[in-house]
Amino acid sequence: MSKEMILAKQKQAVEILNEKDIDMWLTFVRETGNMQDPMMDMIVGTGATWFSGFIITKNGDTTAVIGSLEEANMKTVGTYKNIVSYLKSVKEDLVKVIEKYDPKKIAVNFSRNSSLADGLTYGCYLELMDILKDTPYKDRLVSSEEIVGALRGRKSQIEVDHIKNAIKETLIIFDEVTDFLAVGKSELDVANFVRNIVKERGFDFAWDEEHCPAVFTGPDTAGAHAGPTDKQIQPGHVINMDFGVKINGYCSDLQRTWYVLKEGETEAPKEVMKGFNVIKDAIQMAAKEIKPGKQGWEIDDIARSYIVKNGYEEYPHGLGHQVGRVAHDGGSLLGPKWERYGNIVYLPIEVGNVFTIEPRLTIPGYGIATMEEIVWVTEDGCEFLSEPQTEIYLVKP
Amino acid sequence: MSKEMILAKQKQAVEILNEKDIDMWLTFVRETGNMQDPMMDMIVGTGATWFSGFIITKNGDTTAVIGSLEEANMKTVGTYKNIVSYLKSVKEDLVKVIEKYDPKKIAVNFSRNSSLADGLTYGCYLELMDILKDTPYKDRLVSSEEIVGALRGRKSQIEVDHIKNAIKETLIIFDEVTDFLAVGKSELDVANFVRNIVKERGFDFAWDEEHCPAVFTGPDTAGAHAGPTDKQIQPGHVINMDFGVKINGYCSDLQRTWYVLKEGETEAPKEVMKGFNVIKDAIQMAAKEIKPGKQGWEIDDIARSYIVKNGYEEYPHGLGHQVGRVAHDGGSLLGPKWERYGNIVYLPIEVGNVFTIEPRLTIPGYGIATMEEIVWVTEDGCEFLSEPQTEIYLVKP
Repeated sequence: MSKEMILAKQKQAVEILNEKDIDMWLTFVRETGNMQDPMMDMIVGTGATWFSGFIITKNGDTTAVIGSLEEANMKTVGTYKNIVSYLKSVKEDLVKVIEKYDPKKIAVNFSRNSSLADGLTYGCYLELMDILKDTPYKDRLVSSEEIVGALRGRKSQIEVDHIKNAIKETLIIFDEVTDFLAVGKSELDVANFVRNIVKERGFDFAWDEEHCPAVFTGPDTAGAHAGPTDKQIQPGHVINMDFGVKINGYCSDLQRTWYVLKEGETEAPKEVMKGFNVIKDAIQMAAKEIKPGKQGWEIDDIARSYIVKNGYEEYPHGLGHQVGRVAHDGGSLLGPKWERYGNIVYLPIEVGNVFTIEPRLTIPGYGIATMEEIVWVTEDGCEFLSEPQTEIYLVKP
Repeated sequence: MSKEMILAKQKQAVEILNEKDIDMWLTFVRETGNMQDPMMDMIVGTGATWFSGFIITKNGDTTAVIGSLEEANMKTVGTYKNIVSYLKSVKEDLVKVIEKYDPKKIAVNFSRNSSLADGLTYGCYLELMDILKDTPYKDRLVSSEEIVGALRGRKSQIEVDHIKNAIKETLIIFDEVTDFLAVGKSELDVANFVRNIVKERGFDFAWDEEHCPAVFTGPDTAGAHAGPTDKQIQPGHVINMDFGVKINGYCSDLQRTWYVLKEGETEAPKEVMKGFNVIKDAIQMAAKEIKPGKQGWEIDDIARSYIVKNGYEEYPHGLGHQVGRVAHDGGSLLGPKWERYGNIVYLPIEVGNVFTIEPRLTIPGYGIATMEEIVWVTEDGCEFLSEPQTEIYLVKP
């Protein structure tokens, strides 16, 4: 992220601290070269080797407490107003900085609900507790999840422009895939065709290349989050592909569905059209209900119920997640009230959130119908950032 | 890491579990696409989205407890004998697997001392405690740091071969840099020259490209872990570069020192030669004392004392770290007894460990002399994997 964008995000963080009445936000890390807190990229812009604290306060101050060997780098990066560097132990300097602000409430980078707000390892937590043990601050810690959810979730115009651009380039690649698909080609052939385009154009993959794109042809496929196989495209298959790119640090995440005509067919059979249309309509029905203040499970329930009412099994995942600098971004989720989702399906939808909508269903004997669109939440509803797929794409026999 | 190498590392892990008398090793994670436990690459070979447990037991069993949508992918990856997948909550299945083995001692992926054994976030820790709250297992958890330290630290012949290859390619690039260096070129020019070579040859950087290579010319430079600047090479400068590549998943990490002759000089001045030779000798003296069973601080102390005895300030870091799949690998460290290093300077050196030796000192008015070599610990000492620099490299005026 550029220095300017980081400073803008820090400013937004200060507004959120004031809104939530939290005095200080501390991101405590070490050895980010081995495993990096997911917020570092957005609020720091460089890594840290030794125990380090990155502090943003309600009054707008920013302070980095870091190992002495990283002072010069931190100055060059230039994202923190105050830099405090230590040689032998972080403890004394970190406590001194916290005492200076005497916060009543300190948000720290841990969360049960949101992995993006959960960069503090348990080892770092034990260290931090030891550092604070003789101070009153050890009892003033709260999760940073509210801050992180708002900061990542409320997209600015420039962030949305980046996402729109990633979507545009992705849809171009989907069109190229439509021309490429043919009977006898394998899921891996299709995936490799897409991977080569991504590399040629200098894009990054929105998630692990192993299953980006994920390509599924015909009945009895492996299901979401699996990599492409050598299974071949055959007439009568429904094909779907889940794919996204990252450009200028922002991701897309989209799915499209095709049908492979059998000899003599000019359109998809009724069962296939029904499945496709149920998905298409479920997306529109869900999108119509999205507005600030609603909770994610309410939106998920609309699509889920509609699919079940039409005689299909419910999809084994949430209806949609936020998208941004990572494919699974932000705090809240459009998902069912399942234990594995914790509280994030109860969080209110906010203006500026960018969500996928991606129901799926199995058309017995044909394959899986699924589309994934992306919407941006406005003051009184949402707008589509992707142009929704309205017709099933046909592949010649 | 290839499936074969992962299975070999799992086998080694089972031996270590038996040696340390630990019944089960649980790596508990989620959303590794946002932040990945540093051991996943070595013992799993793929990521996980929902709460997941990767379990290795003393009797040699391996079990993955994962979200249902990732079952197909896990089967394809093929690194776990047993795969248990869940739809709504990980709790019941995870407890059932643990109960089946009824472990007396469970190593979990957290550590105050070693970031590589500390992939468990505090949010995941809270989740895990909740999962185990009605079982006796919540009181049987220990840090996985001993297992991780041994597993990463004890390199097999094939791992050392990969490291040797990375070192060889790195030293070739250092030679090319020697030819490239010239008065008037900036630190950034040198860094960009190196970065282009790395990309052309299809290597990866051993650490963050921002300061890989780190290049420093002349007096009053920024110090370690800083990125290169537009400061220009001048006659009379001592130059050093810290650089490593990753090839086939294994890293090098080396430093070399040059002197830029002034008009009329044919060799470096006495002060420069003294500094260079003190570093060269400190490395050899330290290497001579390395053997299994010694503690890292003892080795650090030899180099540190020698440098101080010769009238220089002590270096503000450890003498050497382990190298492997990451630039800062393994458990133990050759470092001073400073609080920031925790217990890792007291851990015994083991056969198969691969360490850097990298003392540094400032030559007032000239710059920083530092070399970094890499050694492999044998039954009764160590052998150099890098051919040590014995003469300061000269750059024409």
